[in-house]
Amino acid sequence: MPKKQIQRIAEKKQRQIKFTPQKWLVSSPPDSTLDVIGFPETCGLLNAREIEVANTSVDVLLEKLACGKWTAMDVTASFYKRAIVSHRLVNCLTEIFIDNALTRAAELDDCLKNTGKVVGPLHALQISLKDQLCIEGLETTNAPSVSCVSWIGQYAEKNAVLVDILMECGAVPFVRTNWPESFNNIFGRTTNPYNRSLAPGGSSGGEGVLVFLKGGPLGIGSDLGGYGSYSEGTISSILTPSQQLYSYSLRICGLYGLRPSSSRVPCGGVVTPLEGQDYILPVFGPMTSSIGGVKAFMKAITRAKPWLEVPLTVRKKWNEDEYNLIDHGSGKDLCFAIMWDNGVVVPHPPIRRSMQVTKAALEKAGYKVVDWKPIKHRWDIWSAGSAEEIMITTSVTGELIIATMELENSDAADSITAYQLWQLQKMRRDLRKEYLDHWEATASETGTGRPVDATICPAAPFVATPRGKNSIQAMSKYINYTAVWNVLDYPATIFPVTTVDPNLDAKKSPHYFYDGFNKGIYEMYDPETFKNAPVCLQLVGRTLKDEAVVKMTEIVNAALAAAK
Amino acid sequence: MPKKQIQRIAEKKQRQIKFTPQKWLVSSPPDSTLDVIGFPETCGLLNAREIEVANTSVDVLLEKLACGKWTAMDVTASFYKRAIVSHRLVNCLTEIFIDNALTRAAELDDCLKNTGKVVGPLHALQISLKDQLCIEGLETTNAPSVSCVSWIGQYAEKNAVLVDILMECGAVPFVRTNWPESFNNIFGRTTNPYNRSLAPGGSSGGEGVLVFLKGGPLGIGSDLGGYGSYSEGTISSILTPSQQLYSYSLRICGLYGLRPSSSRVPCGGVVTPLEGQDYILPVFGPMTSSIGGVKAFMKAITRAKPWLEVPLTVRKKWNEDEYNLIDHGSGKDLCFAIMWDNGVVVPHPPIRRSMQVTKAALEKAGYKVVDWKPIKHRWDIWSAGSAEEIMITTSVTGELIIATMELENSDAADSITAYQLWQLQKMRRDLRKEYLDHWEATASETGTGRPVDATICPAAPFVATPRGKNSIQAMSKYINYTAVWNVLDYPATIFPVTTVDPNLDAKKSPHYFYDGFNKGIYEMYDPETFKNAPVCLQLVGRTLKDEAVVKMTEIVNAALAAAK
Repeated sequence: MPKKQIQRIAEKKQRQIKFTPQKWLVSSPPDSTLDVIGFPETCGLLNAREIEVANTSVDVLLEKLACGKWTAMDVTASFYKRAIVSHRLVNCLTEIFIDNALTRAAELDDCLKNTGKVVGPLHALQISLKDQLCIEGLETTNAPSVSCVSWIGQYAEKNAVLVDILMECGAVPFVRTNWPESFNNIFGRTTNPYNRSLAPGGSSGGEGVLVFLKGGPLGIGSDLGGYGSYSEGTISSILTPSQQLYSYSLRICGLYGLRPSSSRVPCGGVVTPLEGQDYILPVFGPMTSSIGGVKAFMKAITRAKPWLEVPLTVRKKWNEDEYNLIDHGSGKDLCFAIMWDNGVVVPHPPIRRSMQVTKAALEKAGYKVVDWKPIKHRWDIWSAGSAEEIMITTSVTGELIIATMELENSDAADSITAYQLWQLQKMRRDLRKEYLDHWEATASETGTGRPVDATICPAAPFVATPRGKNSIQAMSKYINYTAVWNVLDYPATIFPVTTVDPNLDAKKSPHYFYDGFNKGIYEMYDPETFKNAPVCLQLVGRTLKDEAVVKMTEIVNAALAAAK
Repeated sequence: MPKKQIQRIAEKKQRQIKFTPQKWLVSSPPDSTLDVIGFPETCGLLNAREIEVANTSVDVLLEKLACGKWTAMDVTASFYKRAIVSHRLVNCLTEIFIDNALTRAAELDDCLKNTGKVVGPLHALQISLKDQLCIEGLETTNAPSVSCVSWIGQYAEKNAVLVDILMECGAVPFVRTNWPESFNNIFGRTTNPYNRSLAPGGSSGGEGVLVFLKGGPLGIGSDLGGYGSYSEGTISSILTPSQQLYSYSLRICGLYGLRPSSSRVPCGGVVTPLEGQDYILPVFGPMTSSIGGVKAFMKAITRAKPWLEVPLTVRKKWNEDEYNLIDHGSGKDLCFAIMWDNGVVVPHPPIRRSMQVTKAALEKAGYKVVDWKPIKHRWDIWSAGSAEEIMITTSVTGELIIATMELENSDAADSITAYQLWQLQKMRRDLRKEYLDHWEATASETGTGRPVDATICPAAPFVATPRGKNSIQAMSKYINYTAVWNVLDYPATIFPVTTVDPNLDAKKSPHYFYDGFNKGIYEMYDPETFKNAPVCLQLVGRTLKDEAVVKMTEIVNAALAAAK
């Protein structure tokens, strides 16, 4: 790298350190300590009240802030402290702007005191943001290329639309987080707090680990092709394949998340790869420790009429009738489908068990559960176009293709034509129609007169990913438990079900495999390695049924709690 | 053309004649009779009752059919007769299937008699369809290429989704109509009943003249780039430039039409050009003699939940609250904007007068009217990509580029790349944002606290088009009063205001021009040539506000009626 660039990176890092209060810099455990999850609460920096704050779910937090029991100043300072501690552990932050956040918090406290009214539905809630969402006066240096040193020193002249709406809603944007693949030339590598020798996955990896470590109550990630319901993947991740993908922290940290329908949360004024491509639209969504937090976010954002700012956002407020499952028999006789495997990669034992646990809990609660028959998870649509698409996108941004990423088809280096793209788009349209008909056809099995109300499925075939190469072909198989919903634009939540228990989740033998790749994925499973790792599932609904998807996740949650 | 193809065309035409009842073939006026509008009612074939039926608006027709005062059989036979007469005059039909239609009508009559209930909200309504909407057992030979002889003999195995929904709603599909540009190698040229030496424009030209001649109560046209709110244009019309565009019959025939938001009316199972392109989505919409008919159609189709059949259709039923202008002060203090000209082509005197008449009527009725400031009608977005796009689309289908269409930029013959397409799509996205902000900014002028509720503007700069060349550059200027709303995906109605009156609509001198092209357009205006031609305007709302757009058109209509 040229000396001048190295110098600019050093200056940027110095600025980051300068904005970090020295009094909050506790001595961190040595690098050899891999599991640092417990550290924030034992390091001595946080008092009991601050620990209580961090362990409060978003809905309760909002209540306490709205009635003035807790002040915006206190809660903001509390989360900021913990965010700095978390950052020291896993290098998850990019922009630190504590003065702005505390000034904002003071204003919110004054407003509540003077008027007796909250500023909005997210009054005084701290929000962490993936480093794509521009904030006036701050740099956005971290996307989408692996070498974006040239962006250092470019200060945004206005907020992203979502940031403006969050401000209107009374929220306190307070940090921005590292991506993509949680590694880049400026901020380096974000690690996984569960095992710091592992990467956190991505692309919203910085966001995932920050919220997981309770360094913030609610984070905003983005999703393009789908590592997680709150993690960007495929195209974008492939676009910036900064390192091997060691694990999917976003999947193993037990958060709740929502990949909304693409038109619900505004995507304007952000730094995003592949601008102008409409093939799969990027979406922003919440990541937090409760499904109530997901609901609070979605309700606030959609009621702020984001379509008056971003044309691609649909003219649809949060609909309480739909949340109350008006189109699903008011939730009385729900029938869920479970997809045990997708016909491409059989999931690891703990994931299968999590589905069994969920099925039993739902049946105990009086709901019907049927099997989902997987279709088209092998995705001609991706294999046909992915390599070509990657080559286009990398050549567009002129970035490097990292050596750990294998491009199997080097002939695909030429850009595809608009006509070829239309053929891919036609395949996507056909796939959407096929899935729609497939879903409708389940009406014959439910006994409710409706097709299945939601589908529950793995979020990935494993609770952590192999140390293998991040090759495109492999990736298209890894991510096909999530990316299919991106192609279809179906909203999907992520919710935690259980944790890995080596006694219950022993390696099963014999195990069946679809092919050698599937076998390889299975063979990297080791119960002891992933002991206690949270196991999450997805709940998937149909386009624009975000409200119903949130409500049904609450129902599944309640059933799981009751069955324990 | 090869002999074999000529033979196949002859056979197809013979089949059309075979399905035409000989008893309805009255002797038509000689070709030298140019204006044939009055012919159907004076030819002697139709009795007083049949003439009454044809002159009944859709909403009244539906009432009479629902209560059994008129039978489906009688009304279907009545319209079929008049459709055949119309066809003999202007060659507007492609598929004639009277037996199917009468069998269907008999079933509907039986059903009403036996159950006392209508089959659906469009019970027994005759619907004519542009020859894109497949019907089981019929050929669809007429699109999108100028030479689709090879499609002769291919009988559809299922209905288009819209046809299925129309059947569910109780409608009677009864004829299909000629396109594109209302000329093709099989069915030849459709002419303009106002002046048979002129073409009817297109691409839904067959549909337009059939409904204009009252050969059907409601027709379904399609729209891609926008000659009319119910007429396909730009890409598609350019795709199949079968002849010079002599006139826009769809504009001069005084019908009501709606170009809905692209996701409201399902576009599945149809024959459409450029499958897979999502740049501008094709839409289907109604054309009829009353705004009540437009409402009845939209209400019925969206309440049939088309999103359960076509994934791109939005999950949104007709919303009566929105129709009642809940977001527009319940319609009490509406503020309309008028776009007097678009900054590219100044409209002809009768169009300007129609806006003056509308403004006066609205003000008399107590509404506020402000001026709309035109932006970006010169369309870098089109000029940048259109020539390239045309070349792509023509090379895709392999069709001929007709000699009357000039491609100014022959270097553009190569296909553009996916990346270049994304740049166009980014421009479109930027344009959408710019228009959104522009519309929002009008809030400062309305005095209602809202931005303008709707914009009223010309549908074209003239009541009929010049005999000039159908060159791309010219077309991009002709159609920019409509195509901009396609790019933005704003719903727009067409409604008739007045007719050309040579006394009131004299050529104005001096007249101002933007450029030589504009001057050329003006110079072809001649009050006597277009004497008595209906003059229509558009009423435009914002994406997904179809309900409000229909209601506000009713309001404008009432104001115009009251002012007379």
